[in-house]
Amino acid sequence: MNFDAVIHNGTLVTVDDRMRTIENGWIGIHEGVIRAIESTAPDSPPPMAMLTINAVGGIVMPGLVNTHTHLPMTLFRGLADDLPLIEWLDDHIFPAEARFINPETVRWGTLLACAEMLLSGTTCCCGGYFHEDAVARAVAETGLRAVLAQGVIDFPAPGVPDPGKNIDHARNYAQRWKGRSRLITPSIFCHAPYTCSDVTLKAAKAAADDLGLIFQVHVAETLFEREQSIKEKGLSPVAHLDRLGILDRRTLLAHCVWVDEADIATINRRGCAVAHCPESNMKLASGIAPVTGMQSAGVMVSLGTDGCASNNNLDLFGEMGTAAKLHKVATFDPTALNAASVLKMATIDGAHAIGLADHIGSLEIGKQADLVILDTRAPHLTPMYHPESHIVYTAGGADVRHVLVAGRQVVRDRRLLTIGIGEVIDRVNAIAQEIRLSHNVIES
Amino acid sequence: MNFDAVIHNGTLVTVDDRMRTIENGWIGIHEGVIRAIESTAPDSPPPMAMLTINAVGGIVMPGLVNTHTHLPMTLFRGLADDLPLIEWLDDHIFPAEARFINPETVRWGTLLACAEMLLSGTTCCCGGYFHEDAVARAVAETGLRAVLAQGVIDFPAPGVPDPGKNIDHARNYAQRWKGRSRLITPSIFCHAPYTCSDVTLKAAKAAADDLGLIFQVHVAETLFEREQSIKEKGLSPVAHLDRLGILDRRTLLAHCVWVDEADIATINRRGCAVAHCPESNMKLASGIAPVTGMQSAGVMVSLGTDGCASNNNLDLFGEMGTAAKLHKVATFDPTALNAASVLKMATIDGAHAIGLADHIGSLEIGKQADLVILDTRAPHLTPMYHPESHIVYTAGGADVRHVLVAGRQVVRDRRLLTIGIGEVIDRVNAIAQEIRLSHNVIES
Repeated sequence: MNFDAVIHNGTLVTVDDRMRTIENGWIGIHEGVIRAIESTAPDSPPPMAMLTINAVGGIVMPGLVNTHTHLPMTLFRGLADDLPLIEWLDDHIFPAEARFINPETVRWGTLLACAEMLLSGTTCCCGGYFHEDAVARAVAETGLRAVLAQGVIDFPAPGVPDPGKNIDHARNYAQRWKGRSRLITPSIFCHAPYTCSDVTLKAAKAAADDLGLIFQVHVAETLFEREQSIKEKGLSPVAHLDRLGILDRRTLLAHCVWVDEADIATINRRGCAVAHCPESNMKLASGIAPVTGMQSAGVMVSLGTDGCASNNNLDLFGEMGTAAKLHKVATFDPTALNAASVLKMATIDGAHAIGLADHIGSLEIGKQADLVILDTRAPHLTPMYHPESHIVYTAGGADVRHVLVAGRQVVRDRRLLTIGIGEVIDRVNAIAQEIRLSHNVIES
Repeated sequence: MNFDAVIHNGTLVTVDDRMRTIENGWIGIHEGVIRAIESTAPDSPPPMAMLTINAVGGIVMPGLVNTHTHLPMTLFRGLADDLPLIEWLDDHIFPAEARFINPETVRWGTLLACAEMLLSGTTCCCGGYFHEDAVARAVAETGLRAVLAQGVIDFPAPGVPDPGKNIDHARNYAQRWKGRSRLITPSIFCHAPYTCSDVTLKAAKAAADDLGLIFQVHVAETLFEREQSIKEKGLSPVAHLDRLGILDRRTLLAHCVWVDEADIATINRRGCAVAHCPESNMKLASGIAPVTGMQSAGVMVSLGTDGCASNNNLDLFGEMGTAAKLHKVATFDPTALNAASVLKMATIDGAHAIGLADHIGSLEIGKQADLVILDTRAPHLTPMYHPESHIVYTAGGADVRHVLVAGRQVVRDRRLLTIGIGEVIDRVNAIAQEIRLSHNVIES
């Protein structure tokens, strides 16, 4: 068989159904798809190909799938930390968004986010924001795979000054991007049940359904949200969404921190996936989502970083380590969320959550060649008894050496090949300087 | 003034009493000591010196102080994860220690640990293990500053087959190393109140006091330990140690997860410092230490990684981020452990905890030049509104570019200058191969 690219001399962590690890493995890629996964004797030469990548004994693994983020919010990274949620939103994030979010700033913030994700081993992300046309165009430049949603909220928003047109705006965006790019899938994202009316929620879900797309919504992020929902509607946020008929296999629920057993049963019965964002939930003091309970019930729980204003980075390796440790201490069970299960959350379960499990999320013949090669010859990754343990508990995004998306090498020797990082950093710094000056005025 | 070294063109995060940040700063170093800290116009040339380091706009900060670790346990990194504590210890760690810990393996494991710490910005560590002579000799080779304790336990231990001689062994070690090395301070470490008799605890503390050294002990790590102590002795672990008269300003308490208000009052009254190890406590599902309560009471709480068998790395940047986020969610207070306070825990508070605050822990004139330069020109550190936020919430050990200890450059452009990492990695891998073979036998 002819291969366009061959990766050899690595430990393959496949995340396939049997969670196979293949020592001294090689992978053959043709037309962006994995066509061979085999092990060889250490010294036998790999098959010939246009591109040969030597993993030099490192780990070869599926690219990570970040199922909840807001790409342009890199612009606000670390702008305001250590604050109560309402003060953080009302006094810092919302004013900054109103003043500085436009197609041009969104473009640079998105390029920065994609650079950060690709360099740290994330090959696919899912999320939403405003000016999503600009987001999608920027993502396409970087070679990242993504499910990108236009945000819907019943207030004036960047690019959607009239909330009465928010559904039309989202539908038009989704129609424009459906089938337009091999790597980008459009989606529609309602901000939350407390910021979108029932009419809006149903119309947005219907628009997503019409186009066969994933519908996303933040839900049950804080105790306040839950208590307010129960007080005003007599229903938990999840029960409220269920009553509207918008929970099904194409609905992705972000956060689900404050869900009880009845909510979990509903989520499971409807087949919704959950995007769990442990670091954001910790930093904003929102709470600890009942991940082990959701998983036991059968719910597909994936991992997200959330936006950079609340985390403050997009490193899904760090998110894996945090998730694995957080739920151990939260349940007093050191066997909870073991390394293999967390690795699945960040790969194949994420792929399921966003409807792409037939194409990505594991190293298997017939799947897209979205993969990451870790350099493990470093003090902090020595010795290596169990590759999965290193991926979850020890490695960081900085250990990523090479990255391929759909067979195309986008990171080589820790350098991004698709866009020039220098210009992106300079442009974001210039935008940040304006935000900083404005923010100092707000603070004084 | 003449300087041996000058660092310029950086943002100085001093962690001094006023938590000053100095833009466009420079630092002058003479005979290992900081002699000047000033700001300059961006284009003005720095003073002349033998060594000039350009921080190229990055962050210059005090070296991190890791107050609780067990250096040679790098040998067991990731050997056994996701297990209950007792099974982890009895079936994996203790058998591996009994069989594989000797002066030669301890040497290579320690060199690996020091390489990992220096490369990730830790310039001083405190901890203890067995064969501590070999540990101290290895640490001295690497240029790391350290407080290193011989371990004391009332069981046969590596290098101390007769527990009746454990105090003599520790005292002899401490005497040999007192005043011997400018960078290494000996110490004595009793494993825990449940593995050391009252006689042993008092004798070990007396030996440390005789020599004016820090005494260390694991205490109140698990609920089981607390409940057993109350059942058997009628006292909490902390109250038990207090009754023995061994709590004072030169006693460092590791963990303190299960301490109540009376314990906290005791710790504060006696002036003990605490080494908080959030990631180890999370991974082993031990619990969440009441850090905000201890700090409110006035207790000096520092940060430690614990050994690599339970974490699984020695990156104190990661530990800062975890601590900051964990205690926010544990207290439902997003203002808890803000970035500045966590940075202090990992620097000046750590220096206080190990008795070295007059010499290290901040960038101040007259202190030792133990410092770290971060490369901030990277997507994940862009933009930078608040340097302290980046240090705690965004940066990782991999962002460390240069490191100095006592004015000596030990890391340059991410490469360790003091020892050859390649040989260390190869030797540890060879030891790990033996452990792996033996361990497979145990597992089968």
